[in-house]
Parts: sequence; C-alpha cells; structure tokens
Amino acid sequence: MIEGKSYIGSQLIAEGDIKVKTFNPELNEDNPWVFTEATALEIDKAVTLADEAFATYKDYSGERKASFLNAIADEIVALGDQLLEVYTKESGLPRGRAEGERGRTIGQLRAFAEMLLEGSWVDAVIDTAIPERQPFPRVDLRKMNVPLGPVVVFGSSNFPFAFSTAGGDTASALAAGCPVIVKSHSMHVGTGELVASAVIRAAKKTNMPEGVFSNLIGSGRTLGTALVAHPKVKAVGFTGSIAGGRALFDLAAKRPEPIPVFAEMGSINPVVILPKASEMNSKKWATAYAGSITMGTGQFCTNPGLIIGVKSDSLKRFTEELSQEISKINPTCMLHHSIKNNFDKGRDLLMSQENVEVIAKYNEDINPNYAAQTVLTVSGKTFLENKTLSEEVFGPFSVIVQCENEDELITVIKALDGQLTGTILSEGDEINEYSNVISALQNRVGRLIFNGVPTGVEVCPAMLHGGPYPASSDSRFTAVGINSVKRWVRPVSFQDWPNSLLPKELQNENQLGISRMVNNTVTTLPIE
Amino acid sequence: MIEGKSYIGSQLIAEGDIKVKTFNPELNEDNPWVFTEATALEIDKAVTLADEAFATYKDYSGERKASFLNAIADEIVALGDQLLEVYTKESGLPRGRAEGERGRTIGQLRAFAEMLLEGSWVDAVIDTAIPERQPFPRVDLRKMNVPLGPVVVFGSSNFPFAFSTAGGDTASALAAGCPVIVKSHSMHVGTGELVASAVIRAAKKTNMPEGVFSNLIGSGRTLGTALVAHPKVKAVGFTGSIAGGRALFDLAAKRPEPIPVFAEMGSINPVVILPKASEMNSKKWATAYAGSITMGTGQFCTNPGLIIGVKSDSLKRFTEELSQEISKINPTCMLHHSIKNNFDKGRDLLMSQENVEVIAKYNEDINPNYAAQTVLTVSGKTFLENKTLSEEVFGPFSVIVQCENEDELITVIKALDGQLTGTILSEGDEINEYSNVISALQNRVGRLIFNGVPTGVEVCPAMLHGGPYPASSDSRFTAVGINSVKRWVRPVSFQDWPNSLLPKELQNENQLGISRMVNNTVTTLPIE
Repeated sequence: MIEGKSYIGSQLIAEGDIKVKTFNPELNEDNPWVFTEATALEIDKAVTLADEAFATYKDYSGERKASFLNAIADEIVALGDQLLEVYTKESGLPRGRAEGERGRTIGQLRAFAEMLLEGSWVDAVIDTAIPERQPFPRVDLRKMNVPLGPVVVFGSSNFPFAFSTAGGDTASALAAGCPVIVKSHSMHVGTGELVASAVIRAAKKTNMPEGVFSNLIGSGRTLGTALVAHPKVKAVGFTGSIAGGRALFDLAAKRPEPIPVFAEMGSINPVVILPKASEMNSKKWATAYAGSITMGTGQFCTNPGLIIGVKSDSLKRFTEELSQEISKINPTCMLHHSIKNNFDKGRDLLMSQENVEVIAKYNEDINPNYAAQTVLTVSGKTFLENKTLSEEVFGPFSVIVQCENEDELITVIKALDGQLTGTILSEGDEINEYSNVISALQNRVGRLIFNGVPTGVEVCPAMLHGGPYPASSDSRFTAVGINSVKRWVRPVSFQDWPNSLLPKELQNENQLGISRMVNNTVTTLPIE
Repeated sequence: MIEGKSYIGSQLIAEGDIKVKTFNPELNEDNPWVFTEATALEIDKAVTLADEAFATYKDYSGERKASFLNAIADEIVALGDQLLEVYTKESGLPRGRAEGERGRTIGQLRAFAEMLLEGSWVDAVIDTAIPERQPFPRVDLRKMNVPLGPVVVFGSSNFPFAFSTAGGDTASALAAGCPVIVKSHSMHVGTGELVASAVIRAAKKTNMPEGVFSNLIGSGRTLGTALVAHPKVKAVGFTGSIAGGRALFDLAAKRPEPIPVFAEMGSINPVVILPKASEMNSKKWATAYAGSITMGTGQFCTNPGLIIGVKSDSLKRFTEELSQEISKINPTCMLHHSIKNNFDKGRDLLMSQENVEVIAKYNEDINPNYAAQTVLTVSGKTFLENKTLSEEVFGPFSVIVQCENEDELITVIKALDGQLTGTILSEGDEINEYSNVISALQNRVGRLIFNGVPTGVEVCPAMLHGGPYPASSDSRFTAVGINSVKRWVRPVSFQDWPNSLLPKELQNENQLGISRMVNNTVTTLPIE
C-alpha cells in the first residue's frame, strides 16, 4: 500500500500541507495516490538521524553492511508485482523494462555486497617502520578508505529503480559506510516509497542504526536546496539535467564547508562513422542506430544524439537508410508530459535553425505523450557556427553532421562539450589512419566504443560512466560499477598506531585476507 | 645566474613593466635581483603551449616521462651551491634545511619516476567479453587512468623546493601526463627561476614537447586569477592559506567548465594528551612538543597549534614543563616580514581574548623577523565559546585547552574544523578507554598519530597529507606520496576496442607486466 509519506528514518511522517501526485503518461492522467511534501523540520530530522547513524554505521564490518545490501535486494524482490505495476503507472515504461531494471538494481546491490565481503576496496596501503633508517627512523604508516558522512541522493527520472531510491548512488554510498537521504524523484514518488519501504525493512532485519536511510518527498527547489545546504550532509549524488546538476554543484561549492557533488548530467554521445563503415555497412549501422536512438523512447543518457561523418555518397546512403529504418519504428511513451513537452520544444528549436534538413520525422497521430522520433542533418560548417545544434534533446532525436573533410571532423569533435561516450564505426584497416580522430574523441569522453552503440551500460568494474564536464561534474569518478564507491570515501592514515586499535583491514594479521599494498608490493599475506 | 624572467615554455621572456624583488629576512633587506611580472599575453602563451604539449605528452610512455623526472632531479642537483644560497637568501631558512629539502624534492621526483617505470599506477581494470551471455552478450571493457590536461601549480611559501616549482604537485602532474604551469611564489622567485631552469634543461635533454612546463612570475590576484580562469587549464594544485585556497576554489567552481582544485590549506593539528601520558611522561612530551612547535620557526602545515587534555595536576605539570622547555629554545627567522607581521597579529589577537593565560612567551630582544614562540592556555569552556581561539597562527604558537572532563574534550574535538593531523598521547592501556575520543578525532583529520609529533611528513604511499575542509579542499585526495597523482587523472573505458589500438597498459599481452584487475582478479599475467 502506498502511504504518501516520507520516511524519516524508519518513521512514515507527513506533517506538511503541500500535496502532490504522480502522472500516468500512457493514460495521460494523474495517478490516484496523494503524497505529502516533507517539512523543513522533517528534513532536518532526517539529516540529524543520518549524522547520528554515521557515528556507528561508519565502523560496521563489510560483512554487516553486505547483509544489509543483500536484504535490500531481497525486500525489493519481495515487493513483487505491486512494485512493477506502480513503476509502469508512474513512468509509462513497459513491464519488461521494469523487470529488467529491477534485475539490474538488485544486481548492483549484490555486487556491492560482494565487494564488501571481499574487502579489498578499502585500498589498504601499509609502509612499515624502519627504526634504523638514517638520519631519521621511518614511522609505521597505514592508510585505508573511510566514509565521508551522510550522502544525499537525487534519483533520476529515467531509471526509477537503477538510478533512484535504491539505485547505484544509494547502494555505493551505503556500501562505503555513508547513511543516505534520498530526495524522491517527483515523477515516481510511489515507486520510490515502495522501494524505500524495502530498504527500511532490510535495515530493521539486519539491525542497522535508525536513520541510516531516509526517503523524503519534495521539490528540488525547497527539499533539494535544504538538503545540499545542510551542514551535516557531506556529499551529493545526482543524475539528471545539466541545469539541475549545476545548480546543486554551485550550491555545494558555496557552502562554508564545500562538499563534493557527483552529478551525471547531459550528453549527446557523438558517433563518428568512418568512410568505409558507411560504404560497406551502411544498412547494418542504420538499423542498429535506428534502434539505439529510439530505445526507451530515447530517454537514456547514452542516447546517440550526434552522428558525424565526412560527406560522401555512402554517408548519404547511410543517412537515407537510417531515415527509412527509424521511420518504421512505432513511437513509444515518454516518462512524463513535461518531458514530452521539453522534447517537442528542444526538437522544434533545433529543426528551426538555419540550414538544417529534416531527414526523418514520425508524423502520424500518436498518444499525446508519445515522442515522434526525429533525425536532422547539417553540414560541419553549420554545426560549428551554431552552438544550439549541439544542445541535448532528451528523447528519440539525433543530428547527422556531414563534414567537408577529416580536418573539419576533428574540429567538430574538439568543439564538443564533455561527453559520457564517443563511438567509432570503422571497417577493416581504415581505423589506423584516424589516430587524430581517436585522440580528439578520447579527450572529450569517459568511454570509447568501437563498432557498437552507446546505449547499454554494462555494470562491471571496468565501466566508466561519467566524463568531462558537463557529462559529469567531476571526470575523476564513475557513477556505475563498484568503483563508484570512491565518490564517498576518503583515505585516512594511521601513524605508529597500536595494532590492536587499527581497523581490521590494517592490522598485521590481515584476518580478512584482503589485498593490500605492503611496502610497495601487493599481497594478501599477514605482516610478520 | 638569475635572469628575472618568466619561462614561457623554454623561452625566458619579460615584456612586462611590473618589477618585483624578493626579501632576505635574516638581513631584513631586499635581495638584489629584479624580476618582471608576466603579461596577460605571456600568460595566455604559456597556457596555449601547455595545451599543445598535452596533445603529445599525454600519450608518452611511462619510461619516457620517468626519464624526464629523473633528469629534472639531476639538473636540480647540478645547480649545486648557487641554488642553496639563493634559497637561504629568499627564505631565511638555514643551509641544512635547504639541503634536506632539496633531498626530499629529488626523492619525490625519483619516486614518481619509479612509479612510472613500474606502471601499475594507471589502475588498469579489464572485464573481457562474454559473447554467450544471456539475454545479451557482455562487451569487452577496459579502463585506465589518463591525464586531465594542463595543471596550474601554486607553490607554497614554506617549502621553496618540496612544495613549489618542481615540488610534489609539479612532479605528480608531470607524472600523470599533464603539462604544468607554475605560478612562482613571490617570496622565492629567484629560487623558483633556478629550479625552473633545471626543469627546462631536463625537458630539452629528454626531448619533451615545448610548453610541457612554464614558470610564470606575478601576483596571485592577476596571474593566479588569469591562470585558474583560463579555459585550457584543467586542474589546479595549491598549498597555502585558507583565504588563498578558497579564493581559487571559488574561482574554479564558477567557471563555465568547473575544474578540480586541490588546495592544501590551514590546520592547527590537535593533540590529545590522555591523563596517564601527562602523569607518567609529562617531561618527555613537553620536550618533544617544545621542539615540534618551534621546528622551522613553526612554519609547517603540521605544526601542533592545539593541545587538549582533561584538567589535572599532571596536565598542569605538563603545561609548566612545556613552558620551561620552549623558553629555552632560541627564536629563529621567519620566511618574510609579512609572515612575521601576520604571526604577531594572530598571536596578539589570540592573547587578547578573554580568559586566556599566557604560559610562555619569549621576550628578549630579537632580530625583527624572528618569531617569539608563545604558548597560551584556556579552559574547554572558553575555547568552545570563542571561535577565534581555534584560528591558525602560522608560526611557533600553540594553545593548551584544559577540559573539565572527557565529555567536554570530545565536544572540543567535534567542534574543530577539518585538520591535516590529529595526535593521541597515551600511556599503557588507557587508550582502550577512549574509543569515543579516537572516533571523534578520526572524523576531523586526514592522519592519526599515536605517541608522536605531527611535524615530519614521511613521503611514502601510505601517507595521507590532506583532510576534511579546510585542511584541504577535497578530502578524497592526498598532496604527498605517489597516490597524489590521482588528483590529475580520470579513468577512461574502452569498449570492444581493437587490441592493437589500445594503450599498452590495456592490451592482452601486458608487455609492461603491470598489475591489472582482470575479471575481478589482480594479476600481471597476459590475457589468453
């Protein structure tokens, strides 16, 4: 049952007066549930509880935190069909997607649990004492990662499970040892409440401290601002728009004590199609990209919004084939009427620019919240002269840039803002002649893809989901994969600390059997 | 010979009109050399050259970058006595310190060279493809660290070698693959120029690209601001005051593309003396702390500016003994008359607060730029009520806080800003009763020290030199040790990338023999 209330720690509380609803885009009507926004007092209570929980939770063993994360996964599964139904009603996404995303979310939680049980993620480094060193003895120094403190998580609209209430940011922060306060995304507050209930049940079953997790209902302007400005909050995770992410980044930077904000924001994910790729495989790539552009109604941060090539007959053919293939696809629902409105506005703005040719636009009558996939083409010169053409249009939309030559293609790449991904489509040996293109592209992106599509983000240690600004607010971190835990930890050194008082990870015995760098050598052995 | 000019890449240029000199604090007079501040055009030229150099330097092998760093060390040694003389004239620090610090600086450069030759610092992570995985095949993903781009380094006043022109920030950034533009510290511009000449000679001898290093003369307000705001600058390293570091941090955060600033700033390095430590070892600790407080005229960022204990006869005895011991020490020279003035101002401000008792103050006539070591004591209550008492006084100065009981001691610790270090002095088993004290202290610091002094920063992998704000602007990084390279790199993932086009670090063969995480296992073996 949906209560319409915030979880302040384990308590469902709703003292406020502001009521909100969520929206069913398939039916184009509000959902029945009524939610109450958190009050200033409730917000402060949640953060205070998180700060109190931190005092104990920060020192919990990996095993104990792993049991919590696994219990969250179990409790999410236990919510069964009800959860999937609320998800589809609040997102317009199909049931299959809900199931797949739930699987991914559970997989993420379990991956962090495994990471905790293995234990080496703390990056233990030990340099033992050298009492006889001249002119001064060397002290004993031992370093490992410890959690930063309470983390605020802003879920994304387009992943109500995997990048939201108990998504990657929450899982990684809880794994680090940081209590989490979620700002529930206003488009799926019901889904968020159900997932939060699973987290709270898991916390109780595994005896976590009160306040280790809260889930607050409210707007970005009031709730979001209050959370990021709160002195007891020590870091922020965000997935969403550039405007939203930048506002939080600016707010955090202005605090008396600035705190890190990891914001994963906009990206148009450039794809470079090299001459032979379009010559020999235009149909294959046209089909693949028609699918990638429209997948999930184009509502992925890795959606390919820009395809760049050098003018040729084969690039023209690829353009035509992509137009044909994408026109065959039936439009699908967007997450919310406001997202659909933004899509229309953004698309219309780019279509209305000078020297733009519309090569595909789905024109039949469709449900008001369905998006009509659209592909434009422009010359390299036009693209370079008009910054508007490189703005992200969130949805099934892409621009094909036809450059005069390789030099212009490189200029186009260099002019791009930072991106999550960059893709090269190439055939045979031609790639060897384009090292300057690769070098320029690598400079702008977090992930390089060869002969593939950017949609589809594998959750594994080697994944980098982030990139130069504005793809993310700090290109040194990733939002996906177990290394995303590094956003929420800082190293602490212990100098000449008594062995028995050290965290287990740094004790001579290495009871946990973790990998440690001891006197410059990686080893799992104890120290004699 | 000192030319008085900036190095714009390898060119000594001085087109500007603004002339400055450095100051000899021992003689209380200006040094003879005249330096010309860089012009706006020269600044832009240096950054543009750095950006151009980045295009090739970023891909240089570890071996090639190591030869550059080792050559810098060699060239610094080759400067011989002349360098040490200019250092002492511009800093007032004794010859022995100059030699020691030069050794440390060379050691740092060689440590990064070794790190590069070993190669595992790139944190290579590889997840190989699983084509048969259901429902979707798993792609091949390989991740490693790549450099951010041109880095601006602001040297510190108190380490003209080790944290300046070719100090830790420069060495780590060059090791990462980032060209460096140094803002020469205005107090030791001559020392900076000589060290820069060594870097430039090393760059030529090892065929580094023009612009890989520049050394600019100018003020923080004009040169510093221009550098941090320059769109081609991608990161900033700073060591100095909170006001200076925060100004750069704010400037960088406001850029259209925000960039990371690692600023190592103020710290008063709290020391907790537990009851038995003062009871049984008051003389030993009084002597050690008299030395630590006055070492280098107190001009270390790890100088112990705060000693906290619980009121007792033995704490009183420790206070008296510290007073006696510190009074025996002959005052020494500060780096600059402005630093001496700030010391006097800060000390007088704290001495003038209500309910403060001065327990030691060197009162004899001394050279105008020598600092009279001073120790105050206050009650815990007074300290908690008056934030001014926790302000850093840069120099030989410390405040002893006498708390009513353990609770007040913990309250005092919790009220502190972030610190580089926190020290516990303890005797026998008593430490086991103070886990709450340790926990509170750990929350506020980057390094915990047991039964020692905070001065003395070992350069080794397990060192953490940084800490919660304002000890540093980002507690997730260190300024000392080879891990300081992580400030200047970001991971990039390669998806399904052809083996021959991958960086050597990620190729199947692992020709470099580095440690890599391959399918969740750390190994140096090639991939079959």
